[in-house]
Formats: sequence, structure tokens, C-alpha cells
Amino acid sequence: MAVRKIKLTIHYDGGSYHGWQRQPGQETIQGQIEQAIEKLTGSKVSLSAASRTDAGVSALGQLAVMQIDCPVPTENLTRAITGRLPDDIAIAEAVEVAANFDLAGAVKNKLYRYAIYTGRVRPVLNKHCWHLPGNLDVKAMKKAAKRLMGKKDFKSFASAADTRGNTVRTIFRCDIIENDDSIYVEVEGDGFLYNMVRNIVGTLVEVGFGRWKPERIDKVLEAKDRTAAGPIAPAAGLCLMWIKC
Amino acid sequence: MAVRKIKLTIHYDGGSYHGWQRQPGQETIQGQIEQAIEKLTGSKVSLSAASRTDAGVSALGQLAVMQIDCPVPTENLTRAITGRLPDDIAIAEAVEVAANFDLAGAVKNKLYRYAIYTGRVRPVLNKHCWHLPGNLDVKAMKKAAKRLMGKKDFKSFASAADTRGNTVRTIFRCDIIENDDSIYVEVEGDGFLYNMVRNIVGTLVEVGFGRWKPERIDKVLEAKDRTAAGPIAPAAGLCLMWIKC
Repeated sequence: MAVRKIKLTIHYDGGSYHGWQRQPGQETIQGQIEQAIEKLTGSKVSLSAASRTDAGVSALGQLAVMQIDCPVPTENLTRAITGRLPDDIAIAEAVEVAANFDLAGAVKNKLYRYAIYTGRVRPVLNKHCWHLPGNLDVKAMKKAAKRLMGKKDFKSFASAADTRGNTVRTIFRCDIIENDDSIYVEVEGDGFLYNMVRNIVGTLVEVGFGRWKPERIDKVLEAKDRTAAGPIAPAAGLCLMWIKC
Repeated sequence: MAVRKIKLTIHYDGGSYHGWQRQPGQETIQGQIEQAIEKLTGSKVSLSAASRTDAGVSALGQLAVMQIDCPVPTENLTRAITGRLPDDIAIAEAVEVAANFDLAGAVKNKLYRYAIYTGRVRPVLNKHCWHLPGNLDVKAMKKAAKRLMGKKDFKSFASAADTRGNTVRTIFRCDIIENDDSIYVEVEGDGFLYNMVRNIVGTLVEVGFGRWKPERIDKVLEAKDRTAAGPIAPAAGLCLMWIKC
């Protein structure tokens, strides 16, 4: 038996966790999965994910890689790890990759979806949305969303806690999709700054409620200052839908 | 100010509760709502519901009546009570009814919906379904469902704990609805015995997996014996959608 490098596709409800990243004394997604794999294999493992999702953020397509050396065949890993995980985390796929596969370098684009619920009654069966009862101007939100597309400096939409130097990212798609009393903001890009999607959604909601004009997006981008954008949207509405390599 | 009789329409996620009915030392939906109203009005209140939903069962259209004597106008009750409730319970509507309004006597029909998820990966974002990965024969389930329609003795589908003498009920509609990897069983009837919908779903699933033929439904009904029907489906998949008066 040799050491194998495995790529995992992971689904989770982030509602009960302090985000993806392992932290001492906190329940995290990474911590839960590493524990499950250690129970299975009997040896320590370290996962490296393509996205460090924040506390409360969910995923239906997180990717992570790990090296393991255990007798469980790769095709049985999905079921064996999932069986050792809590109900709100699941492994959707486990595949072997080349020993020199570099996940961070391989990522081409990601899709995040943010769910807003505009119905009058609190959505008791859906915790994965931002409840904003009332009328949002979807047409204005679509106009504003268009202005975010392309290769731009998104410094105004990054948390002040993001200390990465390069704040230029490319947004391939920023769609506003209406479905009954739900509005989904789908943002596809080659990468995202810390809190970028939630800050984009919070800004689009300002436009949706008519407090800001769609054209103001250009000024927000030009400012390169977090305080120029709208307030951050709550974590619960956000889901990492997929990552393409 | 006079005593008013109020009809409430109630939504809840039953996942964290020991069912609708108040029980000493247990968290129940009725208990939570009565507490919220008592906080609001300062006096004891007793709710009487149209359906006593079981532990884990949800509702998007439970009805209940109560008598109150407080200065809060009826049109403000929805918001005032909901604001005092946990996130997984909401009042959708509060309307004044005649003092002699008899809810139990007024109910004409109810719709329950049961959700089954057949996708391969555990549905981490949806706790309100029965996860049955694999292929269910929906055509066979539809044939079986048709045999449940009409005015019949449903004793075989009632929990042994149901001690009501009359076990005849009328099912107006029993539909199997497919939507991607979800299958919904919708059952509309003039009334339901204890655990009746969950026992119907458990039986239809036996048919769906090909273990039973659709025609066996007739024999199950004739037996008038709970052990003739299939196993009970889990509570989490069940939702009381509406009640018509």
C-alpha cells in the first residue's frame, strides 16, 4: 500500500459550525471531517480546502485534498467517511489525484449562491436564507449586478480583515434570479476576497430597497474602501455551490 | 375591552419539539406559543388546535383558537406573538372569529405533504425529508396511492395507540409528485387517524422498492390490522400544509 492523494467533494450545513477551518476548542467542518477520517484510518490527516468558508456558511461543492495511507479502497471512502460524520456534513465524492496535484493552483472558478426570502411570514423550514419581507426592486438589483462583472479591484467589497495584497478578481457572472418569494444572487468568479460575496449582496440589497441607485456601484468600486459598500449580508444565506478545476 | 376569540394560522419546524401538545417538562409548539402570548398579554391562555402533530412533524398551516382579553389590536397580534417566539415557530395570521366558532367541528379537509429525497448524497441542507437513496418505482406508487382514495376504513394505517372508535375517513386525493431527486406524497382528507399519513407513506415505499405489489393495498385495508401495513415513515418528512374550514 502506498500513500494516496485524495480529492474530496464536500457538502455541509454550516449553521452549527465555526466555519471550515480547524480551530482549537471550536467545532469546525475541517475538524469534523479530519476526526472522521482519523477514526476510519487510525492515523492523523490534514485537509487542505479550496475555500475557507466562514462561520454559518454552507457548501454543496467544497473541495479539499489530503494524503492517506490506509487499506480502505478509494471507491469506498465516500461512504466510509460520511458514515462517521454528523448529519449536517457529507462526502459527495472521493477520487485519487496525482501526487503533485495542487488544488489551490488548479481552481479556475467558483460559484456562490446567496438566498433571500421576501415572503411576509418567517420561513421556519428554511434557515438558509436572509429574511427580508417586502418588495425588493429586482430590476435595479440586476442593473447594479451587471456593473460588478469583469476583472476589477474589489477592495471595497473585502473585509478589512483580508490582508492579501492583490484585491483584483474577475466576476464572470452575477445573476439575480427570482423564484416566487425567493431571490437568489449567484456570483461566479475566479476567486473571492474575504466576505466579498456577502458584502456584494448587502450592497445589492441597498439598491433593491431603493436606498442606492445602481450607478453607485461604480463609485463603490472606485473608492477601494470597505466603508463605501453596503453592510454585510448574514452568513446563513450563503452557499458555495461548486468549484471548477 | 371584551374577550375575543382568535383563530391563529401557525407555521413551525417541528424538528426540535415534542410535538404540538403541551406536556409538563417538554418543549412543545403549543407550550412555546402559549408562553409567548402570556408574555404579551400578561394572562394565562389555552390554545386548541385542529391537529395534534407528533414530535418532529412540521406545519405550514396549523390552525388553533384561543380566547384573549388584552389591549393589543387583533391586526397587531401576528407580529407581536411571532416576535416573542423562537425562530422555528411563526404566526402567519390572526383573525377574530365568532364567540361560538367551533374549530374542531368546522374543519372540512386537511393536506399533509411527505417529502422523500432519493439523491445519492445525504441532503445536508434539508432536514425535512426521508433520505432513501436509490430508485423508487413512482408509477407503482401512484397505482397504490389510487387504491387509498375514497371513504374507507383506515384502521390498518392507524397507530395501535389510536383508541378512537370510528376509523373511517375519506381521502380526497393521494398524489405522488416527482421533482428531480425529490418525491412528494400529498394526502388530502377529511381527517386522519394517529400516524395515518406516515403509515401510508411507509407502505407506499414498500411498493416503490418493489417489495409489495400495488394491489396489496386492498388487502391491507381489508385486514383492519396495523401489522398488515408497511413500517412507519420517519416524522421529519411530514408537513401539515393547510387546513380548510
